[in-house]
Amino acid sequence: MTTGYDDTNVFAKILRGEIPCHKVYEDDHTLAFMDIMPAVDGHTLIIPKVKARNILDCPPEALKAVIATTQKIAIAAKQAFLADGVTVQQFSEAAGGQEVFHLHFHVLPRQMGEHVKPLPRPFADHGILAAHAEKIRAAL
Amino acid sequence: MTTGYDDTNVFAKILRGEIPCHKVYEDDHTLAFMDIMPAVDGHTLIIPKVKARNILDCPPEALKAVIATTQKIAIAAKQAFLADGVTVQQFSEAAGGQEVFHLHFHVLPRQMGEHVKPLPRPFADHGILAAHAEKIRAAL
Repeated sequence: MTTGYDDTNVFAKILRGEIPCHKVYEDDHTLAFMDIMPAVDGHTLIIPKVKARNILDCPPEALKAVIATTQKIAIAAKQAFLADGVTVQQFSEAAGGQEVFHLHFHVLPRQMGEHVKPLPRPFADHGILAAHAEKIRAAL
Repeated sequence: MTTGYDDTNVFAKILRGEIPCHKVYEDDHTLAFMDIMPAVDGHTLIIPKVKARNILDCPPEALKAVIATTQKIAIAAKQAFLADGVTVQQFSEAAGGQEVFHLHFHVLPRQMGEHVKPLPRPFADHGILAAHAEKIRAAL
């Protein structure tokens, strides 16, 4: 069930600068950063700056900004990782696959024949995540 | 590799009215209809009316229209199927999971603990798809 927005979620903390992230892109309305438990190399998350729990409660204008950034990241990540394709995912509520309750879109650059890592996934090395963020930034 | 837009894809045929679909919603820029090989009950597809292969080549304004409709459908499908959550997916290129090369977003109303059917999936009964489309239309 939708239960509103909880300011203590980890992405809210990232937006407030209380915890760090490997930033890929930022504009007035959105932020993109590396998933610290990547399903594939280059796994990036895109979030709105407004307080939205998921797609079910996000103001449409904020959602449009998020998808515009998601597209930018999809194109750049595919190029940066010389990927063959891209998978975009958005999970709303636990039954939908959501784990952090601030709206986010996943961008996964995909190599033909390579499977995504199943859950639960390990944390990635921060040096590797920093390098991956830099690769995508360079392709933007 | 992205190889442009092929007018013979099945969603282009649906847009031209050459083959039928179980329509859920339509506006000037988008169309939503039931997936005929549903991963879950209520599995709906949202497409732009412009010729876009996937998220990698879609004009941003068309993509924004698609995500706005995707949000409408996500909310309505969750309500129609008394679902606990929603999963949104968008696959670009075969390596990303794409099978029809006209941009589409998947909306899957999700019940807690219920898994999505793995690929390859059987065709659903058309009477059931028509009833599911009507349920979602009624919730819009």
